[in-house]
Amino acid sequence: MKAASDLMIERGVITISLSEIGQRAQLNTALVKYYFGGKSGLMLALVRDVLGKALVQMEGLTTMDVDPVTKLKLHIKGVINVYFRYPYVNRLIHAMLLDPVLGEEVAKTISRPLAETQRQLVEDGVRAGALKPIDPMLFYFIILGACDHLFFSQQALRHAFGVHRIDDQLRRAYTDTLLDMVLNGILLPQGKTG
Amino acid sequence: MKAASDLMIERGVITISLSEIGQRAQLNTALVKYYFGGKSGLMLALVRDVLGKALVQMEGLTTMDVDPVTKLKLHIKGVINVYFRYPYVNRLIHAMLLDPVLGEEVAKTISRPLAETQRQLVEDGVRAGALKPIDPMLFYFIILGACDHLFFSQQALRHAFGVHRIDDQLRRAYTDTLLDMVLNGILLPQGKTG
Repeated sequence: MKAASDLMIERGVITISLSEIGQRAQLNTALVKYYFGGKSGLMLALVRDVLGKALVQMEGLTTMDVDPVTKLKLHIKGVINVYFRYPYVNRLIHAMLLDPVLGEEVAKTISRPLAETQRQLVEDGVRAGALKPIDPMLFYFIILGACDHLFFSQQALRHAFGVHRIDDQLRRAYTDTLLDMVLNGILLPQGKTG
Repeated sequence: MKAASDLMIERGVITISLSEIGQRAQLNTALVKYYFGGKSGLMLALVRDVLGKALVQMEGLTTMDVDPVTKLKLHIKGVINVYFRYPYVNRLIHAMLLDPVLGEEVAKTISRPLAETQRQLVEDGVRAGALKPIDPMLFYFIILGACDHLFFSQQALRHAFGVHRIDDQLRRAYTDTLLDMVLNGILLPQGKTG
């Protein structure tokens, strides 16, 4: 699993073969197949491993004794941190969701729990009078897309902006800018007339 | 080009073969190859055709006689409309950016002009005192990711929310919610203390 993860990070693509993974892990491909039941099984195990812990932490957030706005901030930071560490994860999930069998599995263990946690965080904030009412489904796609795109589109980062690596400073700047935009918007009082 | 576009929309993937495209267009594959110089050439022509007009319109925005906030709103609406009509376009660009030769071509004709137009729109807004100063590069990835994700992740839309089609009403709700979030944020005055 670590070999597959490392290869996807190094290459910036999710199209790696079982024999490349076996080679990197110094394991027989047949053994990898036997253990995971093939590449799909390995990828599913990897996604569960990477996102499982993150999802448990996120669900823990909903019962934490902090105000709802702080919770939402921690949630968004957490999502960005996952994409920072595993930039392939969104593409991998997307590819899996296209598969009828894997798709249902990924939806059940990842997409739906994430959507549910997020819905709860948003509704808590609205109930506390801290957040405007907002459709949790629309919120889900706006936030996940915004969190992911810097990492998903590292090619555009290089080609259009000449930035070749996402370091910790860039991750932090992206997080702060995104949080400020989501919470406060970019409009100044004078702009409100526009 | 229309056959390729239709196939990618119908299947929700960009991995279609030249022979499938030829079959749909009722044209000999050799003829398609001769005319476009292969599948890469066809895809490049398609992306240019789809985004060329949109980019020209966007560049026109910068010189229009409306206030900067309205310009930025029109820009974001325009981006969402492109993804709504051609949901495969971002993935296709991403795949092309991975290719050393195609990548430079796509960056030159699409990514850089888009980034430049957006930078100008944001800086105009800041100069007019309507928008907070914001890093145009970070803005680029947040906005493009947020605009794209509903369309990119239609599988998650189906699997996690049971929504099987993005209709015009959903497109409009997504646009309005995104614009309000980007401009005004989701925080209510009471939340500002949190």
